[in-house]
Amino acid sequence: MGSVAWKQLVLNALESNSHLNHSSFMQLATIGTNRTPSNRTVVFRGFQDNTDNIQINTDARTRKIEELKLCPSAEICWYFTDSWEQFRINGTVDIIDGSNPDPLKLQQRENSWFASSLRSRSQYLCPNPGLPRLNEEAQPEISLDPSTGPVDAFCLLILEPNLVDYLNLKSNQRLTFISNESAAAKKSWIVERVNP
Amino acid sequence: MGSVAWKQLVLNALESNSHLNHSSFMQLATIGTNRTPSNRTVVFRGFQDNTDNIQINTDARTRKIEELKLCPSAEICWYFTDSWEQFRINGTVDIIDGSNPDPLKLQQRENSWFASSLRSRSQYLCPNPGLPRLNEEAQPEISLDPSTGPVDAFCLLILEPNLVDYLNLKSNQRLTFISNESAAAKKSWIVERVNP
Repeated sequence: MGSVAWKQLVLNALESNSHLNHSSFMQLATIGTNRTPSNRTVVFRGFQDNTDNIQINTDARTRKIEELKLCPSAEICWYFTDSWEQFRINGTVDIIDGSNPDPLKLQQRENSWFASSLRSRSQYLCPNPGLPRLNEEAQPEISLDPSTGPVDAFCLLILEPNLVDYLNLKSNQRLTFISNESAAAKKSWIVERVNP
Repeated sequence: MGSVAWKQLVLNALESNSHLNHSSFMQLATIGTNRTPSNRTVVFRGFQDNTDNIQINTDARTRKIEELKLCPSAEICWYFTDSWEQFRINGTVDIIDGSNPDPLKLQQRENSWFASSLRSRSQYLCPNPGLPRLNEEAQPEISLDPSTGPVDAFCLLILEPNLVDYLNLKSNQRLTFISNESAAAKKSWIVERVNP
């Protein structure tokens, strides 16, 4: 197990838990603006191209955006309920909203928008999440043209990992993966077996 | 739903998800010693007596203890995979290890020790978690006398909540609960319906 890349372990876990709808749900911790931790469930939207970077879609109006602007560090805790595997993935987050000056990043944001279901996309047109609910009556059904590009509230987050802690509760094995300092596109990882 | 206490919502969720072994698993976020977030799965060990406080058992040798000593703030993210409910529970954590000067707290620690399975208890006799695994061979089976009290590494955490965010993805409803500033034993909560 010592020489296995953590990304392959994630792909294996996704495969062996793919019968569970929640297998792509992970918890993303950030540091709140009041310096206390924040933690919420987000959905894994795949690895970015051929890298180790993790893609997450989010609403630009949520508190996590403000938090990540102040402190871009985050840690994902991802527990697979059938295979009893936990990944703790620590890294820094790049926020890509519609105002991003990089055309390549804007293209990634658009790709992630169109890779989402229409139902997911329409959530970005709902009232501001977390604000008091003003209208007690049922919200009107939002219809969104399938060809419409990303709306203002749609935001792509890219987490670039630098430390991964893998725990397998069935085999009782634990591995830590630390990235080297190299800024190269293809970074390498040092793996160590640690006590569970 | 507006007047329901969040604790009752937790108890309801535990009941409706009780067929799943992982329903008591939650993710605890803290602030790391290097000021980046830390996040890991822990087990809900019940509410403390008749309070809203949440009990968690942990190994005193894990990194979270050092982190909580520097910053006692934490946020639990607890997602129930069958009922599609999420609780985000923010609060401060009291660390109760064997050196605690309060006899009442030591009693609580002992109660929590004996409420755990023998298998859980024996984990606190294993080699230091997170340190390099020195012995590649299988660890000898640890036998622990059922009458033995809490060992040095056993630590009880008590999280006292002050902010709870509840999201129900089936009904698409979201509530926030904020505790009042009263230091009374029975604190009260202000509830507000917010946009999901």
